[in-house]
Amino acid sequence: MRVLGVDPGLTRCGVGVVDGAPGRPLRMAGVGVVRTPADDDVPRRLLAIEAGLEEWIDTHRPDTVAIERVFAQHNVRTVMGTAQASAVAMLCAARRGIPVILHTPSEVKAAVTGSGRADKAQVTAMVTRLLRLDAPPKPADAADALALAICHIWRGSATDRIAAAVARTRKEYRP
Amino acid sequence: MRVLGVDPGLTRCGVGVVDGAPGRPLRMAGVGVVRTPADDDVPRRLLAIEAGLEEWIDTHRPDTVAIERVFAQHNVRTVMGTAQASAVAMLCAARRGIPVILHTPSEVKAAVTGSGRADKAQVTAMVTRLLRLDAPPKPADAADALALAICHIWRGSATDRIAAAVARTRKEYRP
Repeated sequence: MRVLGVDPGLTRCGVGVVDGAPGRPLRMAGVGVVRTPADDDVPRRLLAIEAGLEEWIDTHRPDTVAIERVFAQHNVRTVMGTAQASAVAMLCAARRGIPVILHTPSEVKAAVTGSGRADKAQVTAMVTRLLRLDAPPKPADAADALALAICHIWRGSATDRIAAAVARTRKEYRP
Repeated sequence: MRVLGVDPGLTRCGVGVVDGAPGRPLRMAGVGVVRTPADDDVPRRLLAIEAGLEEWIDTHRPDTVAIERVFAQHNVRTVMGTAQASAVAMLCAARRGIPVILHTPSEVKAAVTGSGRADKAQVTAMVTRLLRLDAPPKPADAADALALAICHIWRGSATDRIAAAVARTRKEYRP
């Protein structure tokens, strides 16, 4: 299974591609950041994010796109940008028929470090170890995207099965 | 000037097209709602919103797209959906090189009723009067989209000039 992890953001969108399966060694297939200039207007920035993510998707052809789930309780400006960038990521995947799964930051931290409250350094250290990299992934921002992809590989198949079951139940019981 | 107003939302995206210029009579060229099923997943719903808005844009060919500016202080779930739908609207416009302007709900209310704290009934009444409609616009949800378009026609030219001046200044003083 190949997963593209996306840590959405208007200024920096972290992207990381990981190959693997539960109980098998993981392999990093790519890591990077899609950046947009802060002095451009938001519509143009979303367009640049779309172009960047489409290039990543078309180059690496992931089976699933895992995106960080956005919450509104933090800084207002940042959250809006994050929600907008994540909408673009969802759109790029949906347009190609690639399943999208959202994971919360604490699910991701718990998956790679064992603790939902791990700090950034701990996540980066574990990502480096799990992917058997010689040095922490660069750029540092993209470590979270790799962690998302790893989280999905380990949790994903179960999540997908549950989601499919829920969807079936809903359809069966729809009046 | 032809303006497409978009009142963004995941379940219902209000759309309204108005022709006009400051100091000239306004004319409604179209009104409607792009709906998506609540039990579809978010990526698919964003894809459906994209298809719906593209049809509105390509049919009516607006000079500007005016979108309601989203704030994060309200209900978390709703705000995320609204931010995501507005990102799709921005993307559709930007892809076609159509300028996008955001107006806050109170700017819109103040523009059409004279008060930034007017209620929904008052906004609908004024939209009906200003567009010389025989009855309140249907569906009711779309009255806000028409109000957005009217707001932009009346405020827009000044806003555009200010935005252009700011952009020029920024470029000149960039180190």
